[in-house]
Amino acid sequence: MKISVIGTGAVGQTIASKLTGLGHDIMIGTRNVAQKSASTLKDAYGNPSFSEWYKANSSISLGSFAESAAFGQIVINATHGGASLTALNLAGEKHLSGKILIDIANPLDFSKGMPPVLLPGLNNTHSLGEEIQNAFPEAMVVKTLNTMWCGLMVNPGMIGGGDHINFISGNNIGAKARVIVLLKEFGWRDENIIDIGDITGARATESLLPIWLKVMGVHNTAAFNFRLVM
Amino acid sequence: MKISVIGTGAVGQTIASKLTGLGHDIMIGTRNVAQKSASTLKDAYGNPSFSEWYKANSSISLGSFAESAAFGQIVINATHGGASLTALNLAGEKHLSGKILIDIANPLDFSKGMPPVLLPGLNNTHSLGEEIQNAFPEAMVVKTLNTMWCGLMVNPGMIGGGDHINFISGNNIGAKARVIVLLKEFGWRDENIIDIGDITGARATESLLPIWLKVMGVHNTAAFNFRLVM
Repeated sequence: MKISVIGTGAVGQTIASKLTGLGHDIMIGTRNVAQKSASTLKDAYGNPSFSEWYKANSSISLGSFAESAAFGQIVINATHGGASLTALNLAGEKHLSGKILIDIANPLDFSKGMPPVLLPGLNNTHSLGEEIQNAFPEAMVVKTLNTMWCGLMVNPGMIGGGDHINFISGNNIGAKARVIVLLKEFGWRDENIIDIGDITGARATESLLPIWLKVMGVHNTAAFNFRLVM
Repeated sequence: MKISVIGTGAVGQTIASKLTGLGHDIMIGTRNVAQKSASTLKDAYGNPSFSEWYKANSSISLGSFAESAAFGQIVINATHGGASLTALNLAGEKHLSGKILIDIANPLDFSKGMPPVLLPGLNNTHSLGEEIQNAFPEAMVVKTLNTMWCGLMVNPGMIGGGDHINFISGNNIGAKARVIVLLKEFGWRDENIIDIGDITGARATESLLPIWLKVMGVHNTAAFNFRLVM
């Protein structure tokens, strides 16, 4: 399947690589193709530069936000939450309408230092997932995978035998069912995918970020998640 | 040990009964002793009225907020989050100073219908735990147990062999260590008690309520919790 990954950071790279490995055709979208493909800067965590990663993943295409969104039958928002609406507006409403738009971003505000808080106006009674759905009413926004490190998003079996949880929310039941098919390709099992209803569920999953950041600090690893005990 | 439980609802009753069973001396605090002890109203969930519960728990004393706080060597805030500061102000700063004040409440706002959201001004960059610590700087506020149903707070072994998590935060390390002794009396194990640092950790644990409410709705039970998978 042709899939657009909007965002070239660690999350976008991880998702794009995995989808390619699964046999999908991927175009990753960026604001400025020439600048991005020439980038030799390592990221804040010391990961290889985009150009190094891009050379090592030669079957992935790189395009503008709009080219990538036009290419994909499904579009994945893997940008920083604070930049998501700008990026998706550049992608263009006409390239998102009628498509499943998987939102895996979080509205983190790093402007006040570490740890980040949630962006003003995008928490508690609001959420990034809802804002994106409101901005693109003809897209079928599905919020998922945003409560864990990207390495686990595409490889849940890395810890605990893959027995830990991933939430999904969105207004369109068919779109969620289609996304669950993709999640299963990543290794997620039905019993660990918790459908929490319409896109207002994004408020609840984005609100998990503060405790996620605390636990990461305590255990000094991002390779953890939660299992439901009943 | 003499312990004050501020709040006479299901949470306060559950905590008070358990502590009594463990051999502690409990005075539960209420706004109006005469009115409360005469109350024959069942609660919103159909539980017995306070007067029925009180008759069945005759070794527990009932007093005003101030009498209860004066009685306890440790004070537990088990009020609704929206009423906590009023109740604790009535309890009186002089009865809280120098004491451990265990805050198990959540700042839920039911005024906009179900499910509740977090109270304006007490979320993201603020929290109830911090507000209480700021209001009573001489008390040692410890936030814990607020991420689960009260039945599990005092009986974690009810599900999953007790192998699920409870967060603790607070500015005073000694106070947290003392509270952990009490948590172990309830059945919590060291490896499942996650110390997330100072009282700003209350932002993170109170922010778990939205996803807790969603999962409760999906599974139609409050008897669940999360286990850390690494």
